[in-house]
Amino acid sequence: MVATARSAIGVFDSGIGGLTVVRALMERLPFEDIVYFGDTARVPYGVKSNDTIHNFTTQIADFLLDRDVKLLIIACNTMAAVAGDAVRARSPVPVLDVIDAGARAAVEISQRGIGVIGTPTTVNSNAYARNIHALNPALSVYSQACPLLVPLVEEGWLEHEVTKLTLQEYLKPVFVESIDALVLGCTHYPLLKPLIGQVAGAGIRLVDSAVTIAEQTARVLTEMDMHNPQRVAPRYDYVVTDIPLRFQTIGSRFLGRELSHLEQVRW
Amino acid sequence: MVATARSAIGVFDSGIGGLTVVRALMERLPFEDIVYFGDTARVPYGVKSNDTIHNFTTQIADFLLDRDVKLLIIACNTMAAVAGDAVRARSPVPVLDVIDAGARAAVEISQRGIGVIGTPTTVNSNAYARNIHALNPALSVYSQACPLLVPLVEEGWLEHEVTKLTLQEYLKPVFVESIDALVLGCTHYPLLKPLIGQVAGAGIRLVDSAVTIAEQTARVLTEMDMHNPQRVAPRYDYVVTDIPLRFQTIGSRFLGRELSHLEQVRW
Repeated sequence: MVATARSAIGVFDSGIGGLTVVRALMERLPFEDIVYFGDTARVPYGVKSNDTIHNFTTQIADFLLDRDVKLLIIACNTMAAVAGDAVRARSPVPVLDVIDAGARAAVEISQRGIGVIGTPTTVNSNAYARNIHALNPALSVYSQACPLLVPLVEEGWLEHEVTKLTLQEYLKPVFVESIDALVLGCTHYPLLKPLIGQVAGAGIRLVDSAVTIAEQTARVLTEMDMHNPQRVAPRYDYVVTDIPLRFQTIGSRFLGRELSHLEQVRW
Repeated sequence: MVATARSAIGVFDSGIGGLTVVRALMERLPFEDIVYFGDTARVPYGVKSNDTIHNFTTQIADFLLDRDVKLLIIACNTMAAVAGDAVRARSPVPVLDVIDAGARAAVEISQRGIGVIGTPTTVNSNAYARNIHALNPALSVYSQACPLLVPLVEEGWLEHEVTKLTLQEYLKPVFVESIDALVLGCTHYPLLKPLIGQVAGAGIRLVDSAVTIAEQTARVLTEMDMHNPQRVAPRYDYVVTDIPLRFQTIGSRFLGRELSHLEQVRW
């Protein structure tokens, strides 16, 4: 079988963070089917080696390509940073990723300098700086690894004093620099947008790659003439490698609605 | 081959937390070889389903039993809580685990009531309360899941204001109860001992199962007449499923010395 305009969009992440991208896609493209893959048995990737991330990522991409998706979205910054090229090399359909999307959006709005926050692996990969400099070599990029933000989001402490203190601690060295844009370089971070906005202040615009990648997807589907012609309620499938305690609760928080059609594969 | 007195002790954990147990063993039993297994590619277990934890745990136990260890130590509370019985059922050698050790130590020192802190999975398994009540049904047990403590330890914020605030928040409902002992029900927590002691105050004694299990191991080896008769420098092997960034740094922090003989298996 081959992908057609009626095929689903494939979205994948190391866990549930990529559901913020699914949510943005649902809003921007309400007639597209989506199949989401979250590697919940092996999450988080942000603290693993490049080698392991590469192996896990290509395994997931192959799984979705076997389901004949018409477009692949890497909704995890760590995977995009480490294995984006490997996924592109094996995919017969277009591949979009959150780092490319975030870098483009940041370059469009920044005049002075760009801050990037993400997991240690994303930040150490230097992928945002590379992508941003490819678009505009004159812009300075200041990156900061924030390993505690993912657990804080998953704990649900979205407006907690502890989270605010943690953000202040992490962002101190970034705010010393002259930046006017801050890329939320991890799909968990959009849930902290209000608090990050408060800590960052009015002079710094936040870049949420979930929204940007939904725009990019719409554009690519138009270029390829691959929008789903059907005007019926779309089908959303969620494939995960584990269904842990509180999965539905946390997942729904990211997705902004109930999780339906949940399927588990065991690797 | 069969295990002899010269065989190594097998210790395993979902990641590196179990190295606090290895450290206690090295101090208590300085002539024993140790082989440690840390599932660093799939860590953390504390947020996974029972089913997945069961499969991963028995896979690791089989790996160590194939290496002819003379004793198995489950140095991870989550694994012990969920899959301790499954490991015992398949092991021809004695199996010790941190929950049993922690429960015994707490019962020995507590007169009034026992607090237990751990990962969500450990706490939800109710394993500490079951073990404690089997020893003394009159003692009350108050448990609290603390999902942020592991990431805080791995970030190295061992005496940070954020960690203190987080502890206060988690322990508030536990301190309302009448307790005189607090079990550190996760192998990461011994690194927070000074701060937890400060937050808990003088009236509450902390139970560190790493120390307790080293005592238990010494006793079992005596009973079995299986102490290593050799009086030479022992061999320490570390087997992991991933060697991520900063692994040596974080590992050494837990172990209190350099990590030698590091080997990676790919699953």
